[in-house]
Amino acid sequence: MRIALLGAGTVASGVVRVLQRNQDELCRRAGRGIEVVAVAARNAAKARQALGEGLPMHADFLALATREDVDIVVELMGGLEPARELVLAAIRAGKHVVTANKALLAHHGNEIFAAAQSHGVVVAFEAAVAGGIPIIKAVREGLAANRIEWVAGIINGTTNFILSSMREQGLDFASALAKAQQLGYAEADPGFDIDGVDAAHKITLLCAMAFGVPVQFQRAHVQGIRDLDGADIRYAEQLGYRIKLLGLTRRSQQGIELRVHPTLIPSARLMANVEGAMNAVMVQGDAVGPTLFYGKGAGAEATASSVIADLVDITRLHTADPEHRVPHLAFQPGALADTPILPMSQVRTSYYLRIHVRDEAGVLAEITRILAEQGMSIDALLQRPSGENDQHTDVILLTHETLEWRMDEALARIQALDSVLAPVVRLRKEELR
Amino acid sequence: MRIALLGAGTVASGVVRVLQRNQDELCRRAGRGIEVVAVAARNAAKARQALGEGLPMHADFLALATREDVDIVVELMGGLEPARELVLAAIRAGKHVVTANKALLAHHGNEIFAAAQSHGVVVAFEAAVAGGIPIIKAVREGLAANRIEWVAGIINGTTNFILSSMREQGLDFASALAKAQQLGYAEADPGFDIDGVDAAHKITLLCAMAFGVPVQFQRAHVQGIRDLDGADIRYAEQLGYRIKLLGLTRRSQQGIELRVHPTLIPSARLMANVEGAMNAVMVQGDAVGPTLFYGKGAGAEATASSVIADLVDITRLHTADPEHRVPHLAFQPGALADTPILPMSQVRTSYYLRIHVRDEAGVLAEITRILAEQGMSIDALLQRPSGENDQHTDVILLTHETLEWRMDEALARIQALDSVLAPVVRLRKEELR
Repeated sequence: MRIALLGAGTVASGVVRVLQRNQDELCRRAGRGIEVVAVAARNAAKARQALGEGLPMHADFLALATREDVDIVVELMGGLEPARELVLAAIRAGKHVVTANKALLAHHGNEIFAAAQSHGVVVAFEAAVAGGIPIIKAVREGLAANRIEWVAGIINGTTNFILSSMREQGLDFASALAKAQQLGYAEADPGFDIDGVDAAHKITLLCAMAFGVPVQFQRAHVQGIRDLDGADIRYAEQLGYRIKLLGLTRRSQQGIELRVHPTLIPSARLMANVEGAMNAVMVQGDAVGPTLFYGKGAGAEATASSVIADLVDITRLHTADPEHRVPHLAFQPGALADTPILPMSQVRTSYYLRIHVRDEAGVLAEITRILAEQGMSIDALLQRPSGENDQHTDVILLTHETLEWRMDEALARIQALDSVLAPVVRLRKEELR
Repeated sequence: MRIALLGAGTVASGVVRVLQRNQDELCRRAGRGIEVVAVAARNAAKARQALGEGLPMHADFLALATREDVDIVVELMGGLEPARELVLAAIRAGKHVVTANKALLAHHGNEIFAAAQSHGVVVAFEAAVAGGIPIIKAVREGLAANRIEWVAGIINGTTNFILSSMREQGLDFASALAKAQQLGYAEADPGFDIDGVDAAHKITLLCAMAFGVPVQFQRAHVQGIRDLDGADIRYAEQLGYRIKLLGLTRRSQQGIELRVHPTLIPSARLMANVEGAMNAVMVQGDAVGPTLFYGKGAGAEATASSVIADLVDITRLHTADPEHRVPHLAFQPGALADTPILPMSQVRTSYYLRIHVRDEAGVLAEITRILAEQGMSIDALLQRPSGENDQHTDVILLTHETLEWRMDEALARIQALDSVLAPVVRLRKEELR
């Protein structure tokens, strides 16, 4: 198979290196050789430095993406444009496409998969979610028997590294971010990671595949960890929980939940013990029960592992007639459902609250009365002196499940109390069972 | 697709139930319906009770396995014969086969896969290893880019349940086994499970797929947990380890290790925290690094999840030409390697030793001198009073890595010391990184 790479960055260098190093074994697996025949790069000199001298470099991305002698186009540029345009051009030229670009698929997946369908080619994207973990294949094929109930993932290594550092070393967010940047786990512009956007791209794709609905990134609720206070990590730990940035999608009777936010998880769960830059995804199926898939979520070779797995898949199966292939989004393209994605106000979950109050008689009674009036019950409560001022105290609460809009109402009332001295911290809690 | 079931036990009932319950969603995934058209059962009345009234029951297994209107034969009988004969007959009649029978494939896999190859049909066996976890697909496809370095699995739920009970509740082996039997986690005749044979069947299949070698169950080293003493579980815990029955296969310069035995694993590893009847498999690839796959290893519906995933795979891809399918054992049938499976004496690992000695001056010096002379170094040492007799003491040692034959020699010398009062307990230790 003749491969063209679009892009010559870290992942591209991993793909070239692993293809070369393992070429004998890959040929024994795939039945024929897989060869990179050309690379499109903006800066040929830099690209040669990253990928080696032997590969022909091109400046015209579009020409390479549609070149006659290329069987599979591997898009590793990232970003929306010109990646979208090039992928669509490759599809129209009858090329199979492999991409690691979650942003592209989260925004334009429906258009791209429809184009692939009508041109009889495959668009494979194992590398777009959870790096080296074969989670796309697991959801699309390995767990195909199941009515999937929910998928929950630690699918952004940067934020998981930051959260681990905050907990293990007691760092505040800014220091933990600086450390992650220093060690190469966070980019100079970390916004996509720490604001949850990257995780939202990925859980959006898993949502479509788990429930057979179109890709709907614009409906995702997205909250990152930028404002997370170390105090809440410590209080959560005292209550038996760890805080993870979780991408979560769940089927309920009213519709589908699709959300990314910092989440308390019971410390004893395997999921809570996924530390550093590692990723893990849990899938709950009605037949299989809980499953967990763990591995590196980023890095040149881990991502290359998934890119090349897609290349091997296409190589093994490229003669299959287009009507009999594994569908891109796990469900047959004509069989997608119109189950709605729920607005966050309709989501049902349990909560962690930290309320900074004046330490005086009756405050706790007022808070618990408001919660009771809103129909919420309390699962656990801590009261802790606030560091700065001995007239102030932190009230930390875990609630049982309730609807988000009820919590919004309760928090508006609590926030309005005279004795409440700072914005209430509200985090969500998931038992993952 | 028209399915015939051979066997009407627990797994068959799970397959029928999940196919019925999820038929709409399965059709949306697979592109066409999957229907059980007939069941072969020795006792039709019992089978009707398990599977429902609606299904035609047959007593002639061979006739059903080769019946013209059947597309896929699902073998759920277990055991070697007549399962082997029936599977081969189905293959010769041009049927695809799905099986959960690890014993059959561990013993006769090479013959069965060769027959499938020459008749252009698929033999799928996701359910044969680790129940509902899609580990076959992960090794064969999802991690296909990697030169796999090792695979290690907790792949027998019965023994893991027993080991968890022994550790958590301080039970001895016999009581933990009785409890497992009472709760349905162990069979009345538990030999295959507790003696490690079932785990060895499974790791043998993973070995073939990871390294591209034939199935070689007869070369596996197999040791179960029947003789495991609760004291060693407690000492291991004091040293920071948990004991798991691990199936392990590893590539070394000399050949391939293939072994099942109780194994100390560092307590902090996710793998050490897989408790109860759950399964988990780690795969270490050169590109992806460490990965872990976790889920239920047994049970009617978890196993059905894998059986039906295979049915969906075949349904989706059944028009593929036989030369372009995913190979049964991950590597193309003509491309298997003759890398030898190493005898246990050539395996390199580290050890836990418990030596019951007379508590007198110089004993420890003698033991450590023998280990040093055999070229072994000590990683950790505990000395603990032995419960029964205050003249006796337990010396517990962790060693660094060495070759098994060296340890055999050292233990023969230690065992011969006058002050050593009981057979030395020797367990193996793996860091899994």
